Amino acid sequence: MSGNIAQLPSLRWGAGAISAAFVKDVTLHRKDALATHTITALGTSSLSKGEAFIAANFPSTSPPPTIHTSYDALFHDPSVDAVYIGTPHALHHTNALSAIAAGKHILVEKAFTLNARQAAAVLRAAKERGVFVMEAMWTRFHPLIDDLRRVLFEQRLIGDVRRTFCDFGQDHGIRGKARDSAQRDPALGAGSLLALGVYSLTWGLLTLEEARAEEPEVVAQQSLVDGVDVATTILLKYPSTGRQGILTSSSEFKGGWTFCRIEGTKGYILVGGPYSSAPREFSVWESNQRADRPVQRQPILERKYQVEGMGLYWEADAVALDIAHGKTENSTMPHAETLRVMRVMDEVRRQGGAKFPQDDADGHR
Amino acid sequence: MSGNIAQLPSLRWGAGAISAAFVKDVTLHRKDALATHTITALGTSSLSKGEAFIAANFPSTSPPPTIHTSYDALFHDPSVDAVYIGTPHALHHTNALSAIAAGKHILVEKAFTLNARQAAAVLRAAKERGVFVMEAMWTRFHPLIDDLRRVLFEQRLIGDVRRTFCDFGQDHGIRGKARDSAQRDPALGAGSLLALGVYSLTWGLLTLEEARAEEPEVVAQQSLVDGVDVATTILLKYPSTGRQGILTSSSEFKGGWTFCRIEGTKGYILVGGPYSSAPREFSVWESNQRADRPVQRQPILERKYQVEGMGLYWEADAVALDIAHGKTENSTMPHAETLRVMRVMDEVRRQGGAKFPQDDADGHR
Repeated sequence: MSGNIAQLPSLRWGAGAISAAFVKDVTLHRKDALATHTITALGTSSLSKGEAFIAANFPSTSPPPTIHTSYDALFHDPSVDAVYIGTPHALHHTNALSAIAAGKHILVEKAFTLNARQAAAVLRAAKERGVFVMEAMWTRFHPLIDDLRRVLFEQRLIGDVRRTFCDFGQDHGIRGKARDSAQRDPALGAGSLLALGVYSLTWGLLTLEEARAEEPEVVAQQSLVDGVDVATTILLKYPSTGRQGILTSSSEFKGGWTFCRIEGTKGYILVGGPYSSAPREFSVWESNQRADRPVQRQPILERKYQVEGMGLYWEADAVALDIAHGKTENSTMPHAETLRVMRVMDEVRRQGGAKFPQDDADGHR
Repeated sequence: MSGNIAQLPSLRWGAGAISAAFVKDVTLHRKDALATHTITALGTSSLSKGEAFIAANFPSTSPPPTIHTSYDALFHDPSVDAVYIGTPHALHHTNALSAIAAGKHILVEKAFTLNARQAAAVLRAAKERGVFVMEAMWTRFHPLIDDLRRVLFEQRLIGDVRRTFCDFGQDHGIRGKARDSAQRDPALGAGSLLALGVYSLTWGLLTLEEARAEEPEVVAQQSLVDGVDVATTILLKYPSTGRQGILTSSSEFKGGWTFCRIEGTKGYILVGGPYSSAPREFSVWESNQRADRPVQRQPILERKYQVEGMGLYWEADAVALDIAHGKTENSTMPHAETLRVMRVMDEVRRQGGAKFPQDDADGHR
């Protein structure tokens, strides 16, 4: 995978100063890098915050990234090719439109926007301006995903897939948070669905769909505290096969290492990692009888992945390659898929009851 | 718990010859028995089957149980106090009505009937005739249940309960079964919901409800093969607390030892056993962060239960005690609860699509 560094596409990023994991990850020295990334500018609310961020994250970078004390200035910085938008969910829509208007390519943290209506507006604007836009659903770019889908749909090691369970729980302690915090305020897009459930949903889509042949039936429940969902359960059913997804999120309870189980007619697969967004391993078990106790068996296949940093550079490399090739859309996370995921989450909220003030007054999301 | 055997209530049972586990369990010699049970008569389709059953199960019982080659004869046998009805689900309604008409007390295997309408008819008939009737939801009588509910609702060891996950999966291999088998034929009540899902639902009700203060909102999906559900997912949400139940059944995939997880604000509980109907242990973990790997912790409480046979004698003892005290209803599995469970399952089938020919033509179940 490594190549002559001079031949790799190079991308100059601007990012919000809170996007520490992203800027750290993409500037790691990696021997398998497919692109080189430079953080040329940072947007932050104050110069002192920006300087502290640079001291912590770029102690020896020369020249250091330019500090902009407004996002608008960042979006108009000519040294920036692409902007990484990692603000709270509710700001993605406005931030993305501003960056697009300034002619920047953009990578927008998931959830892409608050609702499908906002997502469609962003994608439309990007198309008109001719810039690249992608939802930063970075987990889809983890090499484990391709390997897992090969095992499921090419090697068919567990036969026909029947059910996927995925839980993503974190303890956000929201009952103790300030009402205007990003994890508590509906106006900022708070809730377990947009922050966590989007990953559980993604695991369902990736493991139940060999191709996008049909749309699943969606059924959901949400538990709300002051209008914010602290737990969401999404059920998917594929009409032609009866495959089911049982996809849950909680912002009150941290889930376990093994966060996803895929059951098939001949076996099952367990996926584990520190977060449901950050898989580290999967194991394939050759039986439609789960063995956890008292009889212990051995998996027929076990794959473990060493990951430097968080692994956000895989999506960043993909963005750099696309832009180098003049593309405005990525094939792993295409616009249509972003729109679909937002539409499913709109439907989940319609059934579950979580509303954002930014949803249409007439109930359209 | 043991007492003078002469003082224990004694109950003379009639049972179908296929109810091997029941007749074996209730005639075990147990030092903690609360009642004595005699199998005085068996109903079976042929004399030779009955004789083989007696040879296998009562080699030294004198006199052996009377063999009746019709259920009607069994129901009219004066040596029988109570009948255990363990026929396929679809026959419970008719069998129960016949036994009641003959003046027998009855213990009816779960699912009690096919739908709430049939259940109400049986309960009404029993009330009119003044006989005892109970749904044989034997798991509710397992001593683990009282201990678990004490930990949840009196000791509150995991704080406030937030979610219960329970999966009951068995591999019934139904795609290879004859169309007229009890596991394949809708007219016999086939499907994972009535056979397995009823237990997952029961775990949800028992662990999410301290008392029956409010009815949960029910949302469901079912996967059907020739009209029979091979997988059902039931979601429950309690409006006032937001507690959720994620309760699944599959007749294509055998679930694991740890079949139930109860999450609370301060910890969680895992329940394990060979079947979701037959718990053997539970463990209490003091954190709202699940630890399965890589950091291993120790539970703050672990309870294991030694069970002779299957454990069906607990419910049988309860029936004998109730009848000895002139009761027609049991407080652990009262008529209202049987009706409620049937109504929830009717609603699950209404949403999920599984129908029985015995459901009303106008869609009322």
